[in-house]
Amino acid sequence: MKSRAAVAFGPGEPLKIVEVDVMPPQAGEVLIKISHTGVCHTDAFTLSGDDPEGVFPAILGHEGAGVVVEVGEGVTSVKPGDHVIPLYTAECGECLFCKSGKTNLCVAVRATQGKGLMPDGTTRFSYNGQPIYHYMGCSTFSEYTVVAEVSLAKINPEANHEEVCLLGCGVTTGIGAVHNTAKVQEGDSVAVFGLGGIGLAVLQGARQAKAGRIFAIDTNPEKFALARQFGATDCLNPNDYDKPIQQVLIEMTQWGVDHTFECIGNVNVMRAALESAHRGWGQSIIIGVAGAGQEISTRPFQLVTGRSWKGTAFGGVKGRSQLPDMVEDAMKGNIELKPFVTHKLSLEKINEAFDLMHEGKSIRTVIHFD
Amino acid sequence: MKSRAAVAFGPGEPLKIVEVDVMPPQAGEVLIKISHTGVCHTDAFTLSGDDPEGVFPAILGHEGAGVVVEVGEGVTSVKPGDHVIPLYTAECGECLFCKSGKTNLCVAVRATQGKGLMPDGTTRFSYNGQPIYHYMGCSTFSEYTVVAEVSLAKINPEANHEEVCLLGCGVTTGIGAVHNTAKVQEGDSVAVFGLGGIGLAVLQGARQAKAGRIFAIDTNPEKFALARQFGATDCLNPNDYDKPIQQVLIEMTQWGVDHTFECIGNVNVMRAALESAHRGWGQSIIIGVAGAGQEISTRPFQLVTGRSWKGTAFGGVKGRSQLPDMVEDAMKGNIELKPFVTHKLSLEKINEAFDLMHEGKSIRTVIHFD
Repeated sequence: MKSRAAVAFGPGEPLKIVEVDVMPPQAGEVLIKISHTGVCHTDAFTLSGDDPEGVFPAILGHEGAGVVVEVGEGVTSVKPGDHVIPLYTAECGECLFCKSGKTNLCVAVRATQGKGLMPDGTTRFSYNGQPIYHYMGCSTFSEYTVVAEVSLAKINPEANHEEVCLLGCGVTTGIGAVHNTAKVQEGDSVAVFGLGGIGLAVLQGARQAKAGRIFAIDTNPEKFALARQFGATDCLNPNDYDKPIQQVLIEMTQWGVDHTFECIGNVNVMRAALESAHRGWGQSIIIGVAGAGQEISTRPFQLVTGRSWKGTAFGGVKGRSQLPDMVEDAMKGNIELKPFVTHKLSLEKINEAFDLMHEGKSIRTVIHFD
Repeated sequence: MKSRAAVAFGPGEPLKIVEVDVMPPQAGEVLIKISHTGVCHTDAFTLSGDDPEGVFPAILGHEGAGVVVEVGEGVTSVKPGDHVIPLYTAECGECLFCKSGKTNLCVAVRATQGKGLMPDGTTRFSYNGQPIYHYMGCSTFSEYTVVAEVSLAKINPEANHEEVCLLGCGVTTGIGAVHNTAKVQEGDSVAVFGLGGIGLAVLQGARQAKAGRIFAIDTNPEKFALARQFGATDCLNPNDYDKPIQQVLIEMTQWGVDHTFECIGNVNVMRAALESAHRGWGQSIIIGVAGAGQEISTRPFQLVTGRSWKGTAFGGVKGRSQLPDMVEDAMKGNIELKPFVTHKLSLEKINEAFDLMHEGKSIRTVIHFD
């Protein structure tokens, strides 16, 4: 079948809106009609050419919501008409990782997904007879896309796709990092470095967890109003100080912050976040994705005196088991999504969404296909 | 009073055996007659001049056992005749850290201890009228030493000081790291980098925890026999491979090792240990003390894919609460100390103990004062 799609033909080039061919879903696969998709920094990272796993031409997008159109052989967990969110972190329920109870990092489709392929090693997209790669197992920048059954969360059909599509990545990652990775407890202090979509979601998670003092840190003070709305008690701009921000935080708290979150992908900020953590038990969670080859550093003394350095992917959330409940939370207002949707554009204007992001003007632009 | 002591008069110089003057214990302090003391790498590190906190002249030594001679005003938890182990990690029971239930890093005497002083900011040792600094709150290289009451674990008087003095540092650190910091569970895999006293103690802890596969890694294969005796199932010499040891371990285990321990103080090995940890949930514990200014590095992807980087001091053990039970464990044979004591020397020969350590010939030399 034919599908409108925004295709990344090469690194650094604007996406082109074309009509691609989509093959029917194969065994264990599902054809979805995407209604809405967010545009995330990770899409921009891959489009820039800096992502060592990036392959072209590809259909990017990994933060979507849609409806099942057709299922391949053997698919039992969803049927045509079901509302779904595609998952870049699959949940097969069968692998060592799914069964461990310790992580959400399912490996069922990992090897092929990283190469832009479906589990059988081929693609379902083509343009003028040439294959087009998938992206993060989702490719939500196509109106019709094919994903593995294990990469689909079935959600409440009453949910507003324009908002809950954001649970496909950023918001879930931020909130999940607070609850699953850091396990923030009532009264704990929290510091969030970077107030983009992920950072704002961390703030929401911290408020849900009834954290005590919540520091919000960004070099753009225009982010502070929304940060306060989401629960920040102290907003800090590192440019306002003539000493490192970790030193500022240590002085403000005496011994550091219980939980710190890096939500940018900047390895220097990752260090600052770790060194802001509380002596004895503080932990720092890396959420942001750093550029290829970049490294984090610190003095080992920081760890020997009781700080832990961790990371998280998709906020430690198991998509098929846990995302449906997060959609319910959003419908009940326990997760606020509306403030994240600062812009709405049609597929044809998707390159503007990247511009808005690079200019720091949007939190999320949501693309709609109708 | 007079006391025989091995004094470090300057960095890089051999210790000199002299008779120093020891003042009586002040309020909250205790005078101890040390019977035995181990010589640890940390003593050598400070003696070398590389320790940024090192001050001279000082009486080193922090791994001792002895008997209380006299107590200062207000001391209630010990009395003359009690058998004790001095603690370089105090436990006051009153500070934020002691009360947290999350760490053993008591701050009661931290500020002065790091400067070689007693809590009142002065020293109890002098030589020819000049003050001599304390070391790690212990200074066990003096036959008579003064320590803070909060820095003393009262132990079973039947314990063999020649062995249990090692619970004052290395053995407790290694065993404690397994139980308190890593919390190794039955069947978990473990890798130990560096088979000195600490590494061998980690092996004992891993065996106590009923770990499954236990990797012991050292460039000196002469360490492997004892490592196997202490429970290692696989002994690896990184020099036997033409690829990084972390890659070897990943290939041997498919996804890495559940818990890895760095017991050397080498920042490159710290990286290897982290990168050997299991995808999804593996953790790496830094025990070794790196040189001043040295830094650890890795790609943040290692953490984002589920590894945690931690450290430990004194194995997370709260000395006054927990060390007495570890002494009981040693008396019952649940902790083996005898194999650690490879050499025994009188105080006069203490410089030979440093030589044996530097030559890799000893695990621990225990110095006796009688």
